[in-house]
This record gives sequence, C-alpha cells and structure tokens, in this order.
Amino acid sequence: MYVHVNAAVSADGKLSTRRREQVRISGDEDFARVDRLRAESDAVLVGVGTVLADDPSLVRFDREHRETVEKSGVPTRVVADSRARTPPDAAILAGDAPTTVLASEVAPSERVETLREVGASVVVAGEDRVDLTRAFDELESSGVEDLMVEGGGELVFSLFEAGLVDDLTLYVGSLVLGGRDAPTIADGEGFVDRETFPRLSLDGVERLDDGVVLGWSVEEQA
Amino acid sequence: MYVHVNAAVSADGKLSTRRREQVRISGDEDFARVDRLRAESDAVLVGVGTVLADDPSLVRFDREHRETVEKSGVPTRVVADSRARTPPDAAILAGDAPTTVLASEVAPSERVETLREVGASVVVAGEDRVDLTRAFDELESSGVEDLMVEGGGELVFSLFEAGLVDDLTLYVGSLVLGGRDAPTIADGEGFVDRETFPRLSLDGVERLDDGVVLGWSVEEQA
Ligand SMILES: NC(=O)c1ccc[n+]([C@@H]2O[C@H](COP(=O)([O-])OP(=O)(O)OC[C@H]3O[C@@H](n4cnc5c(N)ncnc54)[C@H](OP(=O)(O)O)[C@@H]3O)[C@@H](O)[C@H]2O)c1
Ligand SMILES: NC(=O)c1ccc[n+]([C@@H]2O[C@H](COP(=O)([O-])OP(=O)(O)OC[C@H]3O[C@@H](n4cnc5c(N)ncnc54)[C@H](OP(=O)(O)O)[C@@H]3O)[C@@H](O)[C@H]2O)c1
Repeated sequence: MYVHVNAAVSADGKLSTRRREQVRISGDEDFARVDRLRAESDAVLVGVGTVLADDPSLVRFDREHRETVEKSGVPTRVVADSRARTPPDAAILAGDAPTTVLASEVAPSERVETLREVGASVVVAGEDRVDLTRAFDELESSGVEDLMVEGGGELVFSLFEAGLVDDLTLYVGSLVLGGRDAPTIADGEGFVDRETFPRLSLDGVERLDDGVVLGWSVEEQA
Repeated sequence: MYVHVNAAVSADGKLSTRRREQVRISGDEDFARVDRLRAESDAVLVGVGTVLADDPSLVRFDREHRETVEKSGVPTRVVADSRARTPPDAAILAGDAPTTVLASEVAPSERVETLREVGASVVVAGEDRVDLTRAFDELESSGVEDLMVEGGGELVFSLFEAGLVDDLTLYVGSLVLGGRDAPTIADGEGFVDRETFPRLSLDGVERLDDGVVLGWSVEEQA
C-alpha cells in the first residue's frame, strides 16, 4: 500500500493555532490540488484529533480526475480512533461515502456498536492504541492500494515512527501562526537519535496560490 | 533598522529535537549562504535559550562578501537575555568580536557586572523581560542598520508579536524530527486571532544542498 501524507502548514510549520481552530492556510489552487490527490486515493485517513477539532466530511474529490486515473467509486474515509471517540453525528460518518474506524481493544463495545449502527465499518487492531501496521494490512487486504493521510500531527508522527510513510507533501502558506503548543505535521514524542530521523528526498517545489508546495519521498530506513 | 530572521528547519518545521540538541539540518551551501547573510549584517541576535542549548560563537562570516557590501569591522553579537543568564564562559562572549547582552531590570546586578567584566556591553530595557522595541531602538542608535536574527523560536515569536520582523528566510531540510515539544521558528504563546496573524509575501524559492530555501518579506500589519 502506498501512503501519501498531505497537509497545509504555516511558514512556521503549524497545522492550526494553539487553540486547534482550523485556519485557512492555502487557497483555491491548493484545494484543487488536494481534490486531485483524493481522487487518486482509495482511502483518506485522519486522526480522531482532527475529527474532533475540525469535523471534516472528506467527501470532496475531483471526479473528472478520478476517471482519468481509472479509480472506481469514491474514496473510503478512515479514522484512527483507538477509543472509538468519533461522535456518531460526525460529518465523516454522514453522506454516502463509506467510513472505516480503526480502533483498538480499549474501545468500549457500546461505542463500537453505535458506530456500526450509523454505518461505519470498525476494524480493531492493537491493544491500547491503534496498531497502525496491522490496521494498514487490513486496509490493504480490503483493496486499498493508495492511501492519503490528511493529518494531524499525532497520527503522522506515529506513521513515520512505524516506517509507513512513502510520500510527504506540504503546502507552505505565507503566514505565521506561532505557538509552542500549536500542532505541527509531526508531533508525538519526537525522534531524538540521528540514526532514527526519517530521511527524505525533495522531489518537487512548486509555487501555488501565494505559497509553495514541497513534495518529498521518504528514503528507505537503514 | 532592518530585521532579517534566518534559520534552518526540518521538513516538519523543527529547529532541533525535543531535547533541544543541535541537529545538522542543512549543508555546506547553506552554511555559505548564512555566512554571507552575517557578512551583510551589523549585528547578529540570538535568544539566551539558543546560547544555553548550542553555545554558538557567531564569529563566522564571509569576509570577502563583507567587503563587497561595504560593511566595516565585524558583526556585533547580541543576546536577548532578560536575567543575564549567559554564562561568562559562553562562546558568544569569547574572541575579539564585540558582544551586547540585552537584559531587563530583573537581571541580578552581580551577573550584569560579571558580563561587563568579561567584556560585554549590557543594555537594560524592559521590566521582567527584554522590551525588544526599546532594545532595538538602542541598537539602532548605536549604529546597527541591518540586524540578523538566528533564533530561537521563543525570541522570534516575540519579534513577530512586536511587529519587528522585516524578512524571514528558512532553509527547509529533508528530514523529519517530530515532537510536540521540539522547538519551531515561532513558539511563544502563539497567535489565535486571524486579524493578528503576521502575513508574509513569498519572495524566493531556491533549492540548495538537498533542501530548499524559502524567503518571505513581512507585510505591513493592519
Ligand atoms: N492544516 C492541515 O492540513 C491540517 C490537517 C489535519 C489536521 N489539522 C489540525 O491538526 C489538529 C489535530 O491534530 P492532532 O495531532 O491533534 O490529532 P490527530 O493526529 O488528527 O489525531 C490524534 C489522535 O489519533 C488517535 N490515534 C489512534 N492511533 C494512533 C496512533 N497509533 N498514533 C497516534 N495517534 C493515534 C489518538 O487518539 P486515541 O488514542 O484516542 O486514538 C490521537 O490522539 C487540529 O488543530 C486540526 O485543525 C490541520
Ligand atoms: N536550526 C536553527 O537554525 C536554530 C537556530 C537557533 C536555535 N535553534 C534551536 O532552538 C532552540 C532554542 O530556542 P528557544 O526558543 O528555546 O530559545 P531562544 O528563542 O533562543 O531564547 C529564548 C529566551 O530568550 C529570552 N528572551 C529575552 N527577551 C525575550 C522576549 N522579549 N521574548 C522571548 N524571549 C526572550 C527568554 O529568556 P529570559 O526570559 O531568561 O530572558 C527566552 O527564554 C535550541 O534547541 C536550538 O538548538 C536552532
């Protein structure tokens, strides 16, 4: 399975303010780029932190582009949500597109049941937290070849830590958000050891809207 | 006075690891670029957090380039250090280049005396913390026209907050450091209100070493 992380960050590397309120970082050209990326994906993943903060629906994609890349149907929406905290009325569960919740064994069974009742598939992988490697194997066996990840930073750090990221694309916007507690695209514990820093290779640099899109592929880990 | 902030960040916007251990983010071409920027500056400023973490000497600059830009002498080194915590044996105080410590009224007089004894000029501006606007007026009256700021993120956030930054240049390296507690180029409290986000204008995008240098100018605040 090919895993492509995409997000919009401020010049100082923030996904949003310290209040985790969504900020318009990019513009229409970048939204169109994201819609094309979604169209190229079999599934689109976010962390439950993003669901709780932004309540995204993740239903938009470029339908015309999807035809040209010969993908059928619509991208499945996926949430990494160990404790099944996704609210049953969340936008990510509404509409016709299918939704999969990746949970862990600590998820209370009532909540898992409720999510299933409102139409979600629930995959349980991992004890305390979603075991992303196992969960991704499940997604792959269900037919997901191209997975797009739209944040946030806690989830993406874990993906890097597990060596699961293939590509990283960031739209860097022309504003400063600041804040030692504001989220970045890779939060979590952080790497401390030179040998474990994920190394990237810069593939693309393109001006878009009033910012720039940087695209990297992740180099094989030693 | 013209204020130019420059730093090297990882792809995920970090200045260093969460342990605040210095990381080689850029390479020789970027070091040469930084040496040219220093050569164009009358003074180079860092926060005391950077002095305590990295013990930089800030004496390197491109001497040939300094001649072509017709600057005389060497860049003055400046530390924003409210409580005069710069260790008397810090590298930033050693060598022939002059050093100015910007302190506040809470700095213990013994420590201020010690810093003066080892050759530093001490400017007191502000009650609890360095009042950067006042301190910059002092630097300007002492002849500083071009000030380069080399971090860290606590200082740089305060500079943006006070509306003192003219230019921001970041070398974005091809690695991931991660860490919700790792420093970024603009930490501090953070902005929360759309109206107060510093807005930038992207002037330059240039590949260098295995990364990219992004240059912005700061737009007039409303
Ligand atoms: N600018 C953009 O492009 C963009 C995109 C996305 C998000 N955002 C912003 O990012 C912020 C949310 O990001 P976030 O970092 O707080 O949340 P997040 O990464 O979306 O979600 C984090 C949560 O995912 C769950 N999770 C499940 N398995 C995990 C695992 N193995 N590793 C890590 N997490 C796992 C954890 O909760 P459980 O332990 O309960 O499962 C964790 O708290 C919001 O402010 C949002 O606006 C911005
Ligand atoms: N990659 C790079 O290019 C680069 C460059 C520089 C630093 N770094 C990294 O950045 C980290 C250090 O950054 P940092 O953010 O912790 O420290 P910092 O910004 O260098 O220094 C912060 C300190 O400056 C003092 N200060 C004085 N007046 C201030 C004011 N008005 N506003 C804010 N601060 C003021 C404060 O201490 P007092 O209150 O005691 O005065 C504050 O704690 C280190 O890990 C270092 O390796 C990396």
